[in-house]
Amino acid sequence: MKTNYWIWYPGDFELYHAMKQNFSRIERGYGWPAFWKSEGFRNRVVFWREYDLAEETFFRVFSSAVGYVLAGDRKYPFGQTIACGPGKVKISVHAGCIETFPSIYVKGDVVCSDSTWMVEDYANAPVKAGISCRYTDEKQNPAVWEYSEKIYLPVSAEVCEGGLLLEFETELTAVLEIHDSRKGRQLRVYCGESRQEALDREHCYYSWTPDEKTGRCPRCAVRYAFIAEDTGAPAAEAGSGAEAAGSLADEIEVKAIHQYTDIPVRASFVSSDELLNRIWSVAEHTFRLCSGIFFIDGIKRDKWIWGGDAYQSLFVNQYLMADADINRRTLLALRGNDPMTTHINTILDYSLYWILSIKAHYEAYGDLAFVEQVFPKMVSLMAFCEEQLEEHGFITGRPGDWVFIDWADLDKEGPLCAEQMLFAQCYKTMAVLGGQLGRDLRLCEGYRRKGEILEKRIHAFYWNEEKGAYIDSFVSGKNHVTRHANIFAVLFDIADEGQKRQIVEHVLHNDEIPPITTPYFKFYEMDALCRMGYLEEVLERIKEYWGGMLARGAVTFWEEYDPAVSQEEQYDMYGDRFGKSLCHAWSASPIYLLARYFVGLRITDPVRREYELHPHLEFFDSLECVLPVGDREIRISWDGEELRTV
Amino acid sequence: MKTNYWIWYPGDFELYHAMKQNFSRIERGYGWPAFWKSEGFRNRVVFWREYDLAEETFFRVFSSAVGYVLAGDRKYPFGQTIACGPGKVKISVHAGCIETFPSIYVKGDVVCSDSTWMVEDYANAPVKAGISCRYTDEKQNPAVWEYSEKIYLPVSAEVCEGGLLLEFETELTAVLEIHDSRKGRQLRVYCGESRQEALDREHCYYSWTPDEKTGRCPRCAVRYAFIAEDTGAPAAEAGSGAEAAGSLADEIEVKAIHQYTDIPVRASFVSSDELLNRIWSVAEHTFRLCSGIFFIDGIKRDKWIWGGDAYQSLFVNQYLMADADINRRTLLALRGNDPMTTHINTILDYSLYWILSIKAHYEAYGDLAFVEQVFPKMVSLMAFCEEQLEEHGFITGRPGDWVFIDWADLDKEGPLCAEQMLFAQCYKTMAVLGGQLGRDLRLCEGYRRKGEILEKRIHAFYWNEEKGAYIDSFVSGKNHVTRHANIFAVLFDIADEGQKRQIVEHVLHNDEIPPITTPYFKFYEMDALCRMGYLEEVLERIKEYWGGMLARGAVTFWEEYDPAVSQEEQYDMYGDRFGKSLCHAWSASPIYLLARYFVGLRITDPVRREYELHPHLEFFDSLECVLPVGDREIRISWDGEELRTV
Repeated sequence: MKTNYWIWYPGDFELYHAMKQNFSRIERGYGWPAFWKSEGFRNRVVFWREYDLAEETFFRVFSSAVGYVLAGDRKYPFGQTIACGPGKVKISVHAGCIETFPSIYVKGDVVCSDSTWMVEDYANAPVKAGISCRYTDEKQNPAVWEYSEKIYLPVSAEVCEGGLLLEFETELTAVLEIHDSRKGRQLRVYCGESRQEALDREHCYYSWTPDEKTGRCPRCAVRYAFIAEDTGAPAAEAGSGAEAAGSLADEIEVKAIHQYTDIPVRASFVSSDELLNRIWSVAEHTFRLCSGIFFIDGIKRDKWIWGGDAYQSLFVNQYLMADADINRRTLLALRGNDPMTTHINTILDYSLYWILSIKAHYEAYGDLAFVEQVFPKMVSLMAFCEEQLEEHGFITGRPGDWVFIDWADLDKEGPLCAEQMLFAQCYKTMAVLGGQLGRDLRLCEGYRRKGEILEKRIHAFYWNEEKGAYIDSFVSGKNHVTRHANIFAVLFDIADEGQKRQIVEHVLHNDEIPPITTPYFKFYEMDALCRMGYLEEVLERIKEYWGGMLARGAVTFWEEYDPAVSQEEQYDMYGDRFGKSLCHAWSASPIYLLARYFVGLRITDPVRREYELHPHLEFFDSLECVLPVGDREIRISWDGEELRTV
Repeated sequence: MKTNYWIWYPGDFELYHAMKQNFSRIERGYGWPAFWKSEGFRNRVVFWREYDLAEETFFRVFSSAVGYVLAGDRKYPFGQTIACGPGKVKISVHAGCIETFPSIYVKGDVVCSDSTWMVEDYANAPVKAGISCRYTDEKQNPAVWEYSEKIYLPVSAEVCEGGLLLEFETELTAVLEIHDSRKGRQLRVYCGESRQEALDREHCYYSWTPDEKTGRCPRCAVRYAFIAEDTGAPAAEAGSGAEAAGSLADEIEVKAIHQYTDIPVRASFVSSDELLNRIWSVAEHTFRLCSGIFFIDGIKRDKWIWGGDAYQSLFVNQYLMADADINRRTLLALRGNDPMTTHINTILDYSLYWILSIKAHYEAYGDLAFVEQVFPKMVSLMAFCEEQLEEHGFITGRPGDWVFIDWADLDKEGPLCAEQMLFAQCYKTMAVLGGQLGRDLRLCEGYRRKGEILEKRIHAFYWNEEKGAYIDSFVSGKNHVTRHANIFAVLFDIADEGQKRQIVEHVLHNDEIPPITTPYFKFYEMDALCRMGYLEEVLERIKEYWGGMLARGAVTFWEEYDPAVSQEEQYDMYGDRFGKSLCHAWSASPIYLLARYFVGLRITDPVRREYELHPHLEFFDSLECVLPVGDREIRISWDGEELRTV
């Protein structure tokens, strides 16, 4: 039997849930909705499909919207069984909704809703309806995301500081449910990614009063939970004095209902190197926690959908879960509606990564249908960027735009080199993907030519022969060299082979050039080093950096790690004692690096599912891996003597 | 004490409530949301104001949105008392909301919310916050419109056709509340604007099952209510057989809770002509029913906000209630957001009326602040229209646009004359209002010049000297003359005095030209006749047409009335037995005509509240009138001998 789907205006589902996601940040008692343009879904749409019916058939339309069904020239309310046919008939479903996006479900043997339906919003040409393979039953509500749940009980409990400290086996995104056998008392729950955070009633991010009826707290990141009687005293003064704490352990029962989006892991990595195995495993847990409805940065603090972070998540996803759906949801959510009026997340580079994300998505899954769907928005994003070129044709920020690249001391006077490299790569992407779609040759050729011209200008204005490196800015006269643009020059093949060698020598292997300090950009740096063949160096750095976090007891990988910082201050970031997110998507990059360069799997033709495999067995005594390609799982088995791949 | 207001992004309040209004149409069991682009409110905004505080002061922020208060560099949750000052401080309130528009209320002696706050939506430059004088208390919720209520009990009850037929003293927009002393029985309520409609269980627009707990039915238009036991039989078959009907009269109690927007009537009209007095009075009731949150077309069926209908309501409002607020709400709701992608209500002429509406609003109230607020949207609307000019510079419809003007046999081949006249009047309006705002001289001069060129071309292409009239189309070669363009030529002074006289002779007083059949366009025709001095004729037609409806028992004026149609078919329209709306705003035009031309009040300078008064006393033996001008009420008293005005 055919699957019927809930359908909506394409993108509406993602825009709605993205707003929920981006408005879900809570910090010490106040809400902190993301500080960028938040896009609305449509409120009034009409869905339609034409049928040529061989015989009479019946169907029903389900929707919580206001509206009606027009079958031929008769109108019907939702919920009513409608007969139509035989013959040609156009079925239209008119729907209006204010609080959420209008969606409908048409149930019938022949007349039923799926992505073959068209939808209009009274402002644009008809487009194909949006669907999700997660919404196929009439009893569902696409405005409510359905999490999978798993119950975790505490693995340890400790009476201390006037309350009870509970630890779970790992970090979770959970609803805590507390049953207190002593009635009439008000409890307060303090959650922490670390023991220290949970015990710091004043500075911990999340603290809750359990719901009176259900005993439940809001869903949040939690590894440790500290529970104490709420005496009404200010958090800073509450604490050690409460004598009743000891009895809490006997009187309350706590469980964590971990709520997650079940995206199956399709890869595995078991090598002779135990540390690498643990790094893979913790990276996997980290990444799964950060892969919900969308790729988010981390599960504490922002929980926002960031274009730069998402771009990196695409690469890890490809090798771990190979789930094209979460890519599509994230990319639709990030881009928003036309016309574009501000950059994605307000960040110039994040708009550019969005174009590159479509390329990465295509190269992983050969998903031309999605490229076709978003190509008009790629074109309008490029046009929006082209509105802000300076006299030499370099892209610059407008007032209010955030020219980011990285938390680093970049010379941002005038147009920034790294942005030009991203932009040049965007032009190439437009030409290539436009070509794949069979778009107008002139359009593709135009992008290709603009990309070439931009690359030539980059060479002319930013390549410094004396330094053997690209400089940040040609305006300031400082000839300041950082790693960032030089890493892009390697990754995007903007530098020729000779220049790449110079970059390695003068920049990547030059201790005088300030090191990359964020795992975010370390991702690109390692990628570039791998491309240049420095696998041994990269492996060493993976073990040192990620191994270092494990040595400090990490059960998920952190937003940032500096071995030089004392344990007392290791959770500090952005000037906030517990500001550092301890489960951050971008720190899952070892999965990508190990799979792509060490196991050596690269998809060469995503449409035909063709790939190449060049495992670097010299680093392992044994290796047992599974990696996904399309619908297949590739198995690599090396016992030190024989390599088998299936 | 200063008034504190709820504040929001300007227009959001109106767009939200307009969607509710336009999605509220219910027809025989199904919802019928308006078939045009429905504009979303913003979901993420930041409000801010800078203060220079003489001393420490306290304030609290109320909001149902997600967000926080930033006072100086500290963040606070909503609801908390915040101290700040002395000194300079910037207060920002960040707010995100998905289901409705974000709004906030800042309560404090010094720091408090009003229209001096600015608001940003992360896509456009900061603008002044929107307010409503109806939302000034922190306990209110701007997403909920607060209706005034008045209880009406039935004035008659009649047992018939197996149920109980109740009549109210006039037509209402009411929630019916039914108390049934016999428990366990299901009742069904059939509402009607006419007795016939209420008794027609199959074809009446509104039928309800009272809510089990409250006994209430949804708010709807009702003059007659027929109540019967719901036996589950199809409506067409239910009926006369039920013996229990007789006891219903003893067992149920019914009241109508009339819900209305209380906009005080400031005018009165009492003349020696009883018929005219009754016409005024019924027009007043009609108009008040159709003036709710917005000007709507009628209280049954659409209940939609239409640009053409609203334009006419502005003129009646000016002379009856002189409420500038409902104008502003309606005009903001109609225009929606930029960029403009489709015409208002999908109708080309309705976009043009929107420009003319701003002029009418200004000329009634001198409300330059509102003109200032919407001027950018006037400019972008004109630019949107200018995208669709044909080779001669005439405006045409795009595919999907509705070139309406009137339900009449117009020759719509090629650009339509009446549309050009509206467009020319828009150019003049832009020049005049731009000038009032002190806008860029080149901009205003540009509009003036374009208007002149367009008028010249109208003369060249559409004036037919032989016919002494404007023709609909110069493309078809039919030289088809209708009244419409010729009426506009008079109203907008496009025709010169000689041409106007020809138009009267060859068109307005020419029985061979098909008569205007809709009260909608009759409004313009009567206006034109009055301008040309044919007051006696207009008075005769008012008495005949509106008096005719009264003679048929109307308690509100109908969407349309044709004396030639039999009483049996008089409620039929659009091929629907009860399709005609019996309480329709555009039929309240006698108020405008009587006040403007017979009492003779015209505002000459809306900013200074200057007016002229030329009462045509020859039509009355006595006259006692009050008409509003600005905040004043002008009293006109004529006892047949002496005229007194105050």
